[in-house]
Amino acid sequence: MKIAKTIGSVRKLVRQARSKGKSVGLVPTMGALHQGHISLIEKATKNTSFVVVSIFVNPAQFGPKEDFKKYPRPLRNDLKLCENAGADVVFAPSAREIYPQENLTWVNVEKLSQPLCGRSRPGHFRGVATVCAKLFNIVQPDAAFFGQKDAQQAALIRRMAADLNFPLKIIICPTVRQPDGLALSSRNQYLSPQEKKDAVCLYKSLRKCRQMVVLGENSSKKIIAQMRNILSAPASAKIEYVEIVDVKTLQPLTKIDRSALVAIAVRIGSTRLIDNILIDVPK
Amino acid sequence: MKIAKTIGSVRKLVRQARSKGKSVGLVPTMGALHQGHISLIEKATKNTSFVVVSIFVNPAQFGPKEDFKKYPRPLRNDLKLCENAGADVVFAPSAREIYPQENLTWVNVEKLSQPLCGRSRPGHFRGVATVCAKLFNIVQPDAAFFGQKDAQQAALIRRMAADLNFPLKIIICPTVRQPDGLALSSRNQYLSPQEKKDAVCLYKSLRKCRQMVVLGENSSKKIIAQMRNILSAPASAKIEYVEIVDVKTLQPLTKIDRSALVAIAVRIGSTRLIDNILIDVPK
Repeated sequence: MKIAKTIGSVRKLVRQARSKGKSVGLVPTMGALHQGHISLIEKATKNTSFVVVSIFVNPAQFGPKEDFKKYPRPLRNDLKLCENAGADVVFAPSAREIYPQENLTWVNVEKLSQPLCGRSRPGHFRGVATVCAKLFNIVQPDAAFFGQKDAQQAALIRRMAADLNFPLKIIICPTVRQPDGLALSSRNQYLSPQEKKDAVCLYKSLRKCRQMVVLGENSSKKIIAQMRNILSAPASAKIEYVEIVDVKTLQPLTKIDRSALVAIAVRIGSTRLIDNILIDVPK
Repeated sequence: MKIAKTIGSVRKLVRQARSKGKSVGLVPTMGALHQGHISLIEKATKNTSFVVVSIFVNPAQFGPKEDFKKYPRPLRNDLKLCENAGADVVFAPSAREIYPQENLTWVNVEKLSQPLCGRSRPGHFRGVATVCAKLFNIVQPDAAFFGQKDAQQAALIRRMAADLNFPLKIIICPTVRQPDGLALSSRNQYLSPQEKKDAVCLYKSLRKCRQMVVLGENSSKKIIAQMRNILSAPASAKIEYVEIVDVKTLQPLTKIDRSALVAIAVRIGSTRLIDNILIDVPK
């Protein structure tokens, strides 16, 4: 596995792979890799023959009061995980390499940036869309792999790729969970042992939702009320949102009468966690 | 010369050219081609071995009161001109091909979009940047060619390509003028014979500027005053702006003590014309 620190060097490695007829996969990450990321890398190695993992904690997607500085950066361990998972290159640039001068050009995906996490994280999705556009242009992959865990990001990147005609496939991979249901997240390591137990309420509420739907309930209001009960049980939990939205437009659904995204954001202590499930409704 | 109406077909032609080892040049236009466009195509044929000319009157860059509907679309003649100039492909998509659904993703180049033409054309440069990002992703050229006539657009596209790491060169070609100095523009055909004579005041004012600089004047205020005298002489002329700005940042310069862009926008009758010159000041 090669490590590229500069745009020039990762492009050279990709060019060499292309000249051998290889297809190129990109897994964009912010490092602090866990099994969720590993599943993306493994998927990429199945779908493409040359896999680039980018590790870049993107300042443009953090708000001024967010955890940019304390975000974990265990690079050495990340490199090991990438190598074991079958990555061919890790692209780990500096902030200066990605933003050599004041960035004036921003990619904004209207409508999809505003609801859900967009309300409490203004500018976040603009930062995400912009850095993904940059990474797509730097690596020029045939396919890029993202996790369903970040559902709004997934919807937004899909739409950006379509609207701007990026010549690649966006592949969304399932959320990976602990045995107790907690979705893997680099931010889980901020949680105390008690908070880790409390955090299980997120998935518990989502399971409750699925169960209600299976039993024939389709009123978003009723489902959300039950979910809120579960989510407000632990003393450490503070609900940011619980929403049932159209999976493509992210607009709220009063009734689950088409494919829906059930998405939640909850603070456990001072750590903000998100989770979601998709509910498929055949037409 | 081939004509491609769809994204799929132009990509296929480009792929075939690439497989023969050719380099690809893109000349994005809105059609109604004149010698200025031809000079871009000719430059492209010198610098690259496979030249795509796009002809697309981009609705997203016209304001609601602008001339989108009446903008000239002499496609048959344009095709002839492209072929004679040595283009390999004309990409002439429908609006539906380029915008198959509501476009949610917009590329905005902050600061550079706001001054000069940005003041009277809100949204114009957002539309330009977005469609160029799309065309870059559709054609994936090694180089794209633009005219210096649209100086703000040139600065903006350069910056967008750098900020978003588009893997291509942006090449800016000199303005082509009539013998009397009038810069060629597809909108010149809106002018009456008298207005065509009046329109010469644009270049006359720019020549005056250059002359004053050569004679040692460097006060923007004094130069602009003289230019305004010339520009307000014809009865049909109405000045929109006369500005001397830094060539990269487009911010006003009080003194011409570095490379400057002298840019003007003037209505001649109901036709809005722009023109500019670059003044190089060696450091």
